Amino acid sequence: MADFQNCGSCSSSLLELFERVSAQGEKVRSLKAVKASTDEIDAAVKLLLSLKVTYKTATGQDYKAGSPPVDFSPVSSNGPAATQDEDFVDPWTVQTSNAKGVDYDKLIDRFGSSKIDKELINRIERVTGQTPHRFLRRGIFFSHRDMNQILDAYENKKPFYLYTGRGPSSEAMHVGHLIPFIFTKWLQEVFNVPLVIQLTDDEKYLWKDLTIQKASEYAIENAKDIIACGFDINKTFIFSDLDYLGMSPGFYKNVVKVQKHVTFNQVKGIFGFTDSDCIGKISFPAIQAAPSFSASFPQIFKDKKDIQCLIPCAIDQDPYFRMTRDVAPRIGYLKPALLHSVFFPALQGAQTKMSASDPNSSIFLTDTPKQIKTKINKHAFSGGKDTIEEHRKHGGNCEVDVSYMYLTFFLEDDDKLEQMKQAYTSGALLTGELKKVLIETLQPLIAAHQQRRKQVTDEMVKQFMTPRKLAFDF
Amino acid sequence: MADFQNCGSCSSSLLELFERVSAQGEKVRSLKAVKASTDEIDAAVKLLLSLKVTYKTATGQDYKAGSPPVDFSPVSSNGPAATQDEDFVDPWTVQTSNAKGVDYDKLIDRFGSSKIDKELINRIERVTGQTPHRFLRRGIFFSHRDMNQILDAYENKKPFYLYTGRGPSSEAMHVGHLIPFIFTKWLQEVFNVPLVIQLTDDEKYLWKDLTIQKASEYAIENAKDIIACGFDINKTFIFSDLDYLGMSPGFYKNVVKVQKHVTFNQVKGIFGFTDSDCIGKISFPAIQAAPSFSASFPQIFKDKKDIQCLIPCAIDQDPYFRMTRDVAPRIGYLKPALLHSVFFPALQGAQTKMSASDPNSSIFLTDTPKQIKTKINKHAFSGGKDTIEEHRKHGGNCEVDVSYMYLTFFLEDDDKLEQMKQAYTSGALLTGELKKVLIETLQPLIAAHQQRRKQVTDEMVKQFMTPRKLAFDF
Repeated sequence: MADFQNCGSCSSSLLELFERVSAQGEKVRSLKAVKASTDEIDAAVKLLLSLKVTYKTATGQDYKAGSPPVDFSPVSSNGPAATQDEDFVDPWTVQTSNAKGVDYDKLIDRFGSSKIDKELINRIERVTGQTPHRFLRRGIFFSHRDMNQILDAYENKKPFYLYTGRGPSSEAMHVGHLIPFIFTKWLQEVFNVPLVIQLTDDEKYLWKDLTIQKASEYAIENAKDIIACGFDINKTFIFSDLDYLGMSPGFYKNVVKVQKHVTFNQVKGIFGFTDSDCIGKISFPAIQAAPSFSASFPQIFKDKKDIQCLIPCAIDQDPYFRMTRDVAPRIGYLKPALLHSVFFPALQGAQTKMSASDPNSSIFLTDTPKQIKTKINKHAFSGGKDTIEEHRKHGGNCEVDVSYMYLTFFLEDDDKLEQMKQAYTSGALLTGELKKVLIETLQPLIAAHQQRRKQVTDEMVKQFMTPRKLAFDF
Repeated sequence: MADFQNCGSCSSSLLELFERVSAQGEKVRSLKAVKASTDEIDAAVKLLLSLKVTYKTATGQDYKAGSPPVDFSPVSSNGPAATQDEDFVDPWTVQTSNAKGVDYDKLIDRFGSSKIDKELINRIERVTGQTPHRFLRRGIFFSHRDMNQILDAYENKKPFYLYTGRGPSSEAMHVGHLIPFIFTKWLQEVFNVPLVIQLTDDEKYLWKDLTIQKASEYAIENAKDIIACGFDINKTFIFSDLDYLGMSPGFYKNVVKVQKHVTFNQVKGIFGFTDSDCIGKISFPAIQAAPSFSASFPQIFKDKKDIQCLIPCAIDQDPYFRMTRDVAPRIGYLKPALLHSVFFPALQGAQTKMSASDPNSSIFLTDTPKQIKTKINKHAFSGGKDTIEEHRKHGGNCEVDVSYMYLTFFLEDDDKLEQMKQAYTSGALLTGELKKVLIETLQPLIAAHQQRRKQVTDEMVKQFMTPRKLAFDF
């Protein structure tokens, strides 16, 4: 959990996966039958083999033509399984059988949050006097809780603060991990408010096969990438749980307050914990809840306990904050407001799982221009047609095309994006051409990130991570 | 929990209580029948009424002659019930139906600890060159784990440290609460080692209807009484969890390490937690475990992670440390050694519950000489006979006589204690005379404590409670 942008996105259901292997097998057979070029056949075989590996990893069994997996309902290691036609979303698992990805409108209904509609976006524009960020304009941040309260406060010159975070499970961050930080940076600039960023190294230690030492190191490495997003050092406090808990007179008190007001029954219901889970996991939700209360940061907010918190995060983190919002009034605190984003798709498609151990599942922040080019050309799932002729005739499908999806995240120019959508849909734009635009968008973006990251010194990390007053008076 | 001396001691089983009310009713009736003196009848009636109140409190129902309580098995609010003929001991509840108190030999068997036998006591004397403390000589500290390891280390000039604690559930501490501290002070002087004292204000906040603020205040007040026991400020660190967790770079890391290695199933088995318990209670055992590891106190032990810990505590705290000893090797730490004490009996007898809300259940550290005298004379359960004649003839029973029990805790002179035991058992010494000796033992002891407590300044408390290097080099 605690990844405020789920790095997993959507893993496919096993049945769906089974069908993809079958289809790819079919494709190889027909390519061979029509004596297609060696290159073409090789590429198809490669994908087939890779799909089979994925299938074996997911099911624990070799793929066998004609024998679909027995138990094909998506199973979460830590939560109730989703019904077949429902997406499954919790802080550890995001699953859907839909190539377009999760049905976010349904999620809003199920989670009981509110849609970020045109009216709210207009209000944000009016109140801030700024063009809404492309993530708002394009529905990437699509859901909220109490955002109008935050805007009311802002209009009445009442302060609020931002809180987001990351679970440092490895050194490797990919572009998807940047989504909440890119948006949070925009919010910070537009509203000019303090920001706290939690690195849940304790959580990663509890969930993964990691030492405390390793989790702490990942936290520092991840902090560098976060700092490289350009946060204002005078307005931003980044903290690792393993360190900050031992440095804050207020944080642990709030953790214990939350822990007193949440039962095992509740976390069992919300997070799917079982009796075999360690007591660290069971009590962790209180650690992710605590930064939602200004009293957890006395160095920033002094004795002010009523500064409201706004949390931009991926929607899979909402369970933590539903719990937090439930507890807040019972311990005398304000409920945090939330802005929820969609998940960032893997290169292989909105249903497949991005994984830090598979370098081809996403564009990493350490990738070279060449790696970016190769990955996108080789691995970005295409919504285009199989032949140029067919594509020209029928057009591509932007709803499942990963290159197009990535462009909605990273291409700033609305007009250009719209043009490309139309051209791709009509068939005027080929997959290779669309991929080229994405490559040319991401290469300078990643290069610039790497440039900024190089300039992040240990001293700067230390300063960002030192509990201190920020450039605001409370 | 966390009271390293269970202030509850032994609450009677309900059936036993029922029988005591019946017997007292009988007594009142026969006194009236024989037209005894008004004083005598009044006293008997008073005791009857008090027993009835106790009965009602315990059962929730009025006492009804001839109708024993339906469910008379002792019930713990938080743990499995004891079988009828077995004592029940966990950190919250100590129950026995035996007027002599808990059967400690059986407890050693059940808990799998070792008896502190003559051989161990002799070794302590040999190794330290000091007369063993009366608590050792008299079996008040009666059980241990790995004490021989500690003595080996001491003989080989290898350092160890002491850890004990208290759960600050109220300002009011009674003499029984001093037992672990009196003994720990002796250990510290004899072995010349560092001592850490945990005040579990977080636990009291989680278990009781207390605010964080109040629990913190109790911690400070209790710290004053602990300091008044005469601990060396240069060798002793007292800490409140609510404060220290936010001040220590090592403590939280150890808490999380323990939390990762203990499942809900385990704490359910050990402590009787249920699904309705809050996640704070469920994870608390890790907080009481962490001080058993020297890495939790880097300011004292620097980077030394292998300084063994010796924990003097009442036997009801053993479940915490069984858990701790189970986890220790799995997280690369030494198992703490333990010295277990018996429970301190309530004035009303070894089966009844001492309670901070009943000022007559024990001698409090704030009692005046007059209160001490009155309480002992009025409330200390007597093992003497009903009339002087009978007492002279048959003698008293030291095994159930609370005044005698208290003297075994507080009278230093072995010969005098033995003389009194013989005189009381033979009938030469009357209950009133025995009580007088106890009164004259406790009055100066409490007065001296009050005197020392008065001299404890806020500045001293602050110093004791500041994380710092102690007078030892590691």
